[in-house]
Formats: sequence, C-alpha cells, structure tokens
Amino acid sequence: MTVDPEMTVELEWENAMSSISPRETAADLAAVATLLEMADRLGIVPLLERGEPVTSAELAVAADVPEEGMDGFLATLVAAALVVPTGVKEFRVAEDFADRIHDSGYLTWSLRANQPYVQNPAAFLRDPAAAGAQFRRNGREVAVSSRWIGSQGFYPAATEAILAARPKHIVDLGAGAAGLLIDLLGRLPESTGVALDMSAGACQEAARAARDAGVGERLTVVERPIQSIADDPGPVAGADVIHAGFVFHDIVLEGDVFDRVLRQCREALRPGGIMAITDAVPYASAERERRFSALFTYLHAGFMNVTLPPEEDWLARFRQAGFEQAECVPHRFPGGRLFIATK
Amino acid sequence: MTVDPEMTVELEWENAMSSISPRETAADLAAVATLLEMADRLGIVPLLERGEPVTSAELAVAADVPEEGMDGFLATLVAAALVVPTGVKEFRVAEDFADRIHDSGYLTWSLRANQPYVQNPAAFLRDPAAAGAQFRRNGREVAVSSRWIGSQGFYPAATEAILAARPKHIVDLGAGAAGLLIDLLGRLPESTGVALDMSAGACQEAARAARDAGVGERLTVVERPIQSIADDPGPVAGADVIHAGFVFHDIVLEGDVFDRVLRQCREALRPGGIMAITDAVPYASAERERRFSALFTYLHAGFMNVTLPPEEDWLARFRQAGFEQAECVPHRFPGGRLFIATK
Repeated sequence: MTVDPEMTVELEWENAMSSISPRETAADLAAVATLLEMADRLGIVPLLERGEPVTSAELAVAADVPEEGMDGFLATLVAAALVVPTGVKEFRVAEDFADRIHDSGYLTWSLRANQPYVQNPAAFLRDPAAAGAQFRRNGREVAVSSRWIGSQGFYPAATEAILAARPKHIVDLGAGAAGLLIDLLGRLPESTGVALDMSAGACQEAARAARDAGVGERLTVVERPIQSIADDPGPVAGADVIHAGFVFHDIVLEGDVFDRVLRQCREALRPGGIMAITDAVPYASAERERRFSALFTYLHAGFMNVTLPPEEDWLARFRQAGFEQAECVPHRFPGGRLFIATK
Repeated sequence: MTVDPEMTVELEWENAMSSISPRETAADLAAVATLLEMADRLGIVPLLERGEPVTSAELAVAADVPEEGMDGFLATLVAAALVVPTGVKEFRVAEDFADRIHDSGYLTWSLRANQPYVQNPAAFLRDPAAAGAQFRRNGREVAVSSRWIGSQGFYPAATEAILAARPKHIVDLGAGAAGLLIDLLGRLPESTGVALDMSAGACQEAARAARDAGVGERLTVVERPIQSIADDPGPVAGADVIHAGFVFHDIVLEGDVFDRVLRQCREALRPGGIMAITDAVPYASAERERRFSALFTYLHAGFMNVTLPPEEDWLARFRQAGFEQAECVPHRFPGGRLFIATK
C-alpha cells in the first residue's frame, strides 16, 4: 500500500484543526446565507432551485453580468459546497441545497429583512410610532426570507393535517405566492383551491406559479385582504379546509374583525370541515424555541405593533367563534403553532 | 410523589417538538446575533461584557432611552437566554455570553458589515473598480464584527506561541484597539509593547483600554501604517516578538513593500526572536473551513481587491526576507493560519 505524503499532511492538518473545533457552525451558516443572498440578488436562485444542471453562460444571462464574473462566483459556490460541477462550466445544486436555503432564511430574515429595526432600536424605544413611520422594511426582503424559512419551517405540520382531512376544496387566507396550495393541489388531483392575498404582486406570482405547476385551472386567485371576509365570505364558501398562515396575528388589534372573520369561516365550512391556523405564540419558552421566539415576539410587539396572542387566547377565540373543538399541534418554526378547529 | 399536570403537558410538548428537530441552530444563531447587534446599537454591550450585575436604569442611561423601553428589551434578552436576572430590574450576562458574541461576529461580519457588497454583486461583477468606489463598507460595522470574531477566532494560537517565547518586548503591527497586546502584557508583568495602527480612532481606543487595564505605562501606541516600517523600522526595534494580524494581506499587491517590511522586521528582532503573522489563505478546503473561507476569499478578491497568498507563498516570503525557518500552525478561524518564523 502506498501513501500519498501530501494526503497524509492534509489529513494531519484536518485532524489538528478538528481537535480545536469540529465544526464552525456559526461561520458556516453565515457564509452560506451570505452567498445565497448574493445569488438571490443576482436573480439566479430560481434557476439553481430547479435542481437540473445549468451552465455558467445561462446563469450569466439571467444575472445580466459578464460570464467571466459568473465563473468566479460559481467557483466560490463550489468551494462552499453549495453547488457541484456536472460538466465543463456546468453545475447543479448540492443535495442539501433545500436545507441550506431553509437555514439561511432565518439569518436573512433576522439580520437583513429587519435591518431598519436592527439599526435603529433607540429610535423605536423613544417613539415607536414615529420610528415605525420613518423606518420601514423592504417588502421583497421580507417575502424572500420568509419563503426560505417557510419551505420547511412553517407549513409541514399544516400540510399533514390538511391531507389527512382529504379535502375537495381548500381556501388559503393570506396565501402569498400560493406555495402551500400549489403543493396541496399537486397531491390532491381532484381538489380545487382559492388563494386569497391582499398583495397584487403575490397574486400575480400565485397565478403564474399555479400555471407552471399545471394546477392553474383548479386554483382561483382572489386579491383581497383577510379582513374583507368579515363582511363578504364569498371566497371561503363551501371549503372543506380553510388555512391561514401568519395573517390572523395582524388583525388581533382590529376590534371585532378577528372574531367576525373566524365566525364567517366556521359558517362557510362544510360539515366536518376544519379551520387550520398556522401562527405564533409570544415568548415560547422551550429550549429549542426561546431565542428565535424572543426575537420574533419582540420585533412584532415593539417595532410592528403586533401583539401575538398566547396559546390559550387562540383556543378561546375558536370557542368564541362557535367551534366546539380546537387543538394545538407542535410545529418546527420556533414559537409557531398549528391550531386546528373542527366544525 | 405528586406530578404537576401542567409540567407533564409542558414536557410532552417539548418532547414532541424535540422529535421534530432537537435544535434550531440557524434560528438560534440568527436571533442571538440580531439581539446582540441591537444591544451594540444601543451602546450597552461594553456595560454587559463586564460581567457584573447592571440595572435597567443604568443601561437606559447609557443608551439614552426611556427606562420602560430598556425594561422591555432586557425582558427579551432574558427570554433569549442572553442575560439572567440577579435582582429587581438587575441583570448579568449569561455564562456563555462570550461564546454568543464570538458566534454572532461571523453573522454580523458576513451579512451586515459586508452589506454594500452583498446587496450589489451584479455591479461588482460588471465593473469592480467603479462598484468599489461607489459601495463602501461602514468602518465601525467592520471593526465591531471583527472584534467579536477575534475574541476567540483570530488570536488564541498566536497568544500561545508568543507566551511560549517569554518575550520582554512585543510589537503588534495593525494592532487595532490593542486587545491582543493588552492581554499579553497582563500575563507578562515585566514586558513592554508597541501597538502600531494607521487608524487614529483605533490608537486612541488602544491607549484608553491600556490605561483601563493598568498596562498603560508599558504600552507605546504608534499611529502609522504598516508600510512605513519599510523605510523606518524604529517601532519594531529590539522586539523579541513581532506580531501582525490580518494586515500583511493588504500589502501583497504593493510591489516590494511586503518584502521590505518583513526584512526590516527580521533585522530589528533580537537574536532568537520570532515573527508571527496571523492571516488567511485562499479557499481553504477542509470541511470545517471551506464555506466561510470561500466567502472570505471571494469578498477579498472580487470586492476589496485583496488577493490572499496561499500557504506556500507565505512561507516563501519569509525565506526571501532572510528567515531560515518558518512554520504554519493551525488556527480556529476558518482559512486562518499562524505563520511563525524564527530569527
């Protein structure tokens, strides 16, 4: 057996360093999130996420940058284990790419999307209303980082609960780009859905994504705020499942609107139908949740004027709206809860 | 034995969630770094870092915010396990606070201090010189995040090597706020030191910190760039150890300046003295280094016009400057290396 002396040196080196610290988790996560944000700014994440081989030239065109520059960026993504070469100047994302996107979402949401808050805490502590009017978040940064977290953080529990109900018709309130609904309609080929969102951009994106996924004919997109359901329950009529993710906390402070929307949802549901709300409770105290939940709660309360209701409060609100039974299901997103109420 | 039913429910809940994911590492690190950056912006990190109990009122004065606002922020830091209450409105940092600061440094350096680069990669890929002139980093953000990483990431290997040489006189080139030297002089009560840095602010901070640490009379602060040593080796004269951390890579492209500085250092050293350079190599490939090293190398090359020399190159430069022996020591900072050359 021959031993490559260079390989031996390399191994000794790696062992010596591993004895200092086996993984540099913080450095790894920081570097990956930063490189992925740069990829996002270059507009190449959708091309990479397809998971198919893609050339440097194609990515350079998508980013509108010189191919030589894209070569350098891709060499760095290879060095960082985010993509792997599949041919000459051709690459595919690494197998754990979806996990890396998910992890990075927490970093980019916290440190980048919330930047106006993080940079100006004293202004908010002195005069929250004035600071709130002056320092506003960039909607795109919030949307992208939320989508990155959302892929694995927000909705797997909801998906499971909804599929178990074998619904024929599903409504998602505050559907965004309809990621959850498109996934569900793909798995339930006989079912139909309604995606409601107040953002015109999100609705356009939802319609486009549904067409791309081949479920466009079974998905109706409605551009309206969730509050409108209080007076016009049309969009929720006849649903077997009504889902709402991280939107009900926005209407907690709006008088009786929360209760009226929930009541309309209950009345609109078919018998045996379920209402599923994915949302957050304040200051969740479990060890695996407490740090991110503290930040999430604090930024909502002090910087966005959103008071998250505690678990008992969510359950009481279901009872008040006429639901006889409601339960709370654990959830991966720190501080997140899935509340399920049956008609 | 009685069992508290609420406690049982709490435990079941925690177990159920832990089975989903035992730790939310990315969410934890993101939340902690964000809360610490907010604390830094409020100007309360130095007070907290002392490790002594401190009151909400004292912190509110330091941050110039209403005490009620500081109460809310401190409640969040408690919820996030960053501080612990020690009395009525009195707090002390958690025992692992130094580790949390260190971890957070990687996140704030990558995503916050490098923000002008991260937000504008296409501009740099199209025209690096023009983009470099337009998009500049905030010096304070770079300094604070580097100090946070540095505490545990940059210099422990250097400290060990320097102490082993039992030096009577130590010079640090690019000393910043002289953290390394102040630590060394505290452990070597007979020794003296010279802190050289081109930044007036860093020099003022170094002089102040040395006085506070009781080593002010043994530390001379010199406001000069490292390049000046090429023509005037006065500040390095008679040293037993000359250290330089992350500054030599800045002069790699400046013709023969690198060689002339190193030569002057060798000549100025007492017999048996050592030159210790803490710096980085490009694209380190070990698993624990590759991600952060890829980002660090890429940002320096493409955005700061700094080409990091590979390990062999560093060693060759020592030989060229007349050092007979030079070695490379492993190092916690991903991609970091400690080069030690003996006169």
